[in-house]
Amino acid sequence: MEALTIFSPATVANVSCGFDVLGFCLDSIGDKMTIRKTSKKGIHITKIEGYDLPFEAEKNVAGVSALAMLKDAQPDFGFEIEIYKNIKPGSGIGSSSASAVGSVFAMNELLGRPYSKTQLTNFAMKGEALASQCEHADNIAPAIFGGFTLVKSVAPLDIIQLPTPKDLYVVIIHPQIEIKTSEARAILPKLVALQDAITQWSNVGSLVHALHTSDYNLMSKSLTDVIVEPHRSQLIPHFNTVRQTAITHGALGCGISGSGPSVFSLCHGKDVAQNVATAIENVYSKTAIPFEIYNSKINTKGIKIL
Amino acid sequence: MEALTIFSPATVANVSCGFDVLGFCLDSIGDKMTIRKTSKKGIHITKIEGYDLPFEAEKNVAGVSALAMLKDAQPDFGFEIEIYKNIKPGSGIGSSSASAVGSVFAMNELLGRPYSKTQLTNFAMKGEALASQCEHADNIAPAIFGGFTLVKSVAPLDIIQLPTPKDLYVVIIHPQIEIKTSEARAILPKLVALQDAITQWSNVGSLVHALHTSDYNLMSKSLTDVIVEPHRSQLIPHFNTVRQTAITHGALGCGISGSGPSVFSLCHGKDVAQNVATAIENVYSKTAIPFEIYNSKINTKGIKIL
Repeated sequence: MEALTIFSPATVANVSCGFDVLGFCLDSIGDKMTIRKTSKKGIHITKIEGYDLPFEAEKNVAGVSALAMLKDAQPDFGFEIEIYKNIKPGSGIGSSSASAVGSVFAMNELLGRPYSKTQLTNFAMKGEALASQCEHADNIAPAIFGGFTLVKSVAPLDIIQLPTPKDLYVVIIHPQIEIKTSEARAILPKLVALQDAITQWSNVGSLVHALHTSDYNLMSKSLTDVIVEPHRSQLIPHFNTVRQTAITHGALGCGISGSGPSVFSLCHGKDVAQNVATAIENVYSKTAIPFEIYNSKINTKGIKIL
Repeated sequence: MEALTIFSPATVANVSCGFDVLGFCLDSIGDKMTIRKTSKKGIHITKIEGYDLPFEAEKNVAGVSALAMLKDAQPDFGFEIEIYKNIKPGSGIGSSSASAVGSVFAMNELLGRPYSKTQLTNFAMKGEALASQCEHADNIAPAIFGGFTLVKSVAPLDIIQLPTPKDLYVVIIHPQIEIKTSEARAILPKLVALQDAITQWSNVGSLVHALHTSDYNLMSKSLTDVIVEPHRSQLIPHFNTVRQTAITHGALGCGISGSGPSVFSLCHGKDVAQNVATAIENVYSKTAIPFEIYNSKINTKGIKIL
């Protein structure tokens, strides 16, 4: 195989209670990338469509993760990367992770799959670090593994693939405002109340149990966030109205996707998701803020070859 | 049925990462109680053996939980309670919970089982509150439900019974020193580092996953506590040596049981547990501190009629 085109999915990190550790993978939104072996060594980004991103490999998220793999693999050839970017940078649904994952997943295929999914995650984290100034894996892991993932630890890297109950859909509203990840991090307190932390870890425990038992009711009760959301939701216009609307229309839970501004609503069943999407659209249509709405099944396979 | 005798088991609360929410049930240590219907109304404690505890129902943990149920059930008869206490009060393995649970479990049987396990937990929490000045359920839930439990919330009470992998044994060392629950609570900080809280909830999530998948290796990696143990372990002589010894001899994890001073070592297999017990006994035999060691299978059934 000399070249291939892949679909690299958008992802939702944090998932309300699981700040910095939980994530899940989307199906109907993501980037496309074509990666080609070249006799010329090194990583060369030859095309970028959709958004204005740097072509220099060491300044491009997909390039940096690719270079990390290249350094380890040391093949006697190079790679050429074309990026067809659909996920808007800064949307909070893993735009940089999709780029970081795309190059290394495709290169691994072209190299004959020498690397495990966890190793791919490690390379992709180098690219992610370029975008967010720290190596984290809560968007990368679901993009690579699919479904729900738990990043048990970053050093050493330890990813757990959680089960994904049937018929889970997610509605994403992306208000077209900018929240920098660094700003969303800075707003968080360094210290949190022990009592709140207890609430949070009981919810993480019960959410993991709910995923194993396909207990949608318990899932719903677990999707709360008493630590991060009270701070970050202030950055997202109409957050409380959106959440209230989503819950009223049957969503299992609604929270900030990653560091925002996107907001996810997890739903059981396609019809519920459609109702929730319509209702949220009605809320935002009355504001002056431009927005996009996506409605996607949870993607249990993760990144794939097209 | 006019009378019955029950075995009310000891329990381990917190389980390293799951402070205030996780617990599991022991098999070979617990109290016995005989409960009898009486034509005389009210709750009457007629015998207490083992430890010196108050006979007045409203000052006795088993009496207070019994009174809470009696108030709700309003039968036209009363109950007589005999307590054969084996679990030393203040040992950290759920002594007060065993008392609180024993009376209401037996009364429920004698009343024809009108109450659910969650309702029994609610009554027992009233008794527990007498001992620890706050209503909590992390020892009560495993005593009633058996195996591993997660107290998702206290108000409203929401208990999750987690799966218990095969061949789990626990070694308990109980150094015969006194740590008051109130003292063990006072030593804890009101605020904790967000980063530590994240570590803790990732471990709770991965422990729940490990219980569902019988992944003993993951269980082992999850049994750490970066929030409470660093503070409370100072109250327990030779804690670090005991833990190091347990891990060296093959324990999956080792931590403070409840608020201490007992220390639990969770083990996969009877032989490992025996080795761990012997090794810990060797450590403590060299000190001047009197101690008891227990070795028990995890009890998946909870409290039972004898």
